[in-house]
Amino acid sequence: MSKLETKTWQGVRAEVQRRIRSRAWKPGDAIPFEADLAREFGCARATVNRALRDLAEAGLLERKRRSGTRVALHPTGRAVLDIPLIRKEVEAAGQAYGYELLSKALDAAPPHVVAGMERSDAAHLVHVVALHRADERPHVLEDRWIDPASVPDAATADFSTKSPNEWLLENVPFTRSELAIRALPADPDTAGSLDVAEGTAILTLDRATWLEGRPVTFVRLLHGADHVIRSSVTA
Amino acid sequence: MSKLETKTWQGVRAEVQRRIRSRAWKPGDAIPFEADLAREFGCARATVNRALRDLAEAGLLERKRRSGTRVALHPTGRAVLDIPLIRKEVEAAGQAYGYELLSKALDAAPPHVVAGMERSDAAHLVHVVALHRADERPHVLEDRWIDPASVPDAATADFSTKSPNEWLLENVPFTRSELAIRALPADPDTAGSLDVAEGTAILTLDRATWLEGRPVTFVRLLHGADHVIRSSVTA
Repeated sequence: MSKLETKTWQGVRAEVQRRIRSRAWKPGDAIPFEADLAREFGCARATVNRALRDLAEAGLLERKRRSGTRVALHPTGRAVLDIPLIRKEVEAAGQAYGYELLSKALDAAPPHVVAGMERSDAAHLVHVVALHRADERPHVLEDRWIDPASVPDAATADFSTKSPNEWLLENVPFTRSELAIRALPADPDTAGSLDVAEGTAILTLDRATWLEGRPVTFVRLLHGADHVIRSSVTA
Repeated sequence: MSKLETKTWQGVRAEVQRRIRSRAWKPGDAIPFEADLAREFGCARATVNRALRDLAEAGLLERKRRSGTRVALHPTGRAVLDIPLIRKEVEAAGQAYGYELLSKALDAAPPHVVAGMERSDAAHLVHVVALHRADERPHVLEDRWIDPASVPDAATADFSTKSPNEWLLENVPFTRSELAIRALPADPDTAGSLDVAEGTAILTLDRATWLEGRPVTFVRLLHGADHVIRSSVTA
């Protein structure tokens, strides 16, 4: 019997998860009946049911009407990525944050932006390119497109001291946001801004954001040399 | 008033999250008192409290003793990455899965494996290199190291038909697992296996796994050309 609190469904879930991860209950095994688990844990059967449903939704258990509940054979791992404000990320690493606006213009959206925003047309958008530095060195190149139809203030906003990353987070709501992580070779402009050789493998985060179905912004974050995104995996 | 179910704390959390994301409650704003929210939602004050605590832990709200609860000014975005079995990932995309073992040997762990496993020494580990294909094309090169001190069966296991990825998931428990995502240039071996030019930017996932503090395995997954990891962001 575990020392965990198993009176709540979260406590029961934690204990069941521990048994699965430690292989006390092996992949493919049938697990005990809910009534038996409730007796063992000293909780209501509904509490066990709630915990098992949650673990089934997370892919750790497979529940079938006839054959009962089994430990999933190939559970999907999950990793949660934190996506902080770039300034806060740099400061949290104990580094000095620097910011420089490189350009701001109304430009026709290129194909990868049209596709990323799920647009049907290559509209003219507010295009801002800015460099975030950590301890004087280039950290991230922010290549940002903002739809002035969704964010009218973007056309007149001054991004010379505050980054679009920070301005949007403070001022513009969203209802949906999609992330795509790639490795891309540095083109000449990117290589120049990030101070790396042309063709260097660049860890790239594309993020598109919508409000009630209307595209708000698309950003390509091009990371400096040796950047690593870290996370823990839960299974 | 929302149509959401606000009798449960999860329902209250969803409604509060909707108000924050839609900017009905703006960054930095003080939100209504718990008692007033409980009255509006028709639920117990403890239910509101549980929901607000959860959102504060997620970084969406800031709770201070004197000034009450405010919407966070710069909430950290979160993206959940699914990490499925490689075979299942390929099959889920409607592609034909193929697998080929390239090599298996007992090798001295190189520096990036020693560091990734948080080892103090360059032990000899079971080193398996295998190629996963999607529709005949190279999909992922699995460069895997397994510690035979933690997984004795790995020394004799036959990885010619089942990948280490799948074998470990079925047979070996873990209690901790760390992920690191990078962009690396393809070295000659990698370029040859993935059928890309040397120096091509390769999206790389390093994953190290421990059981009760003992290193179990380290894998570097080198992805084929144009690979993208996708996820949705919640803020």
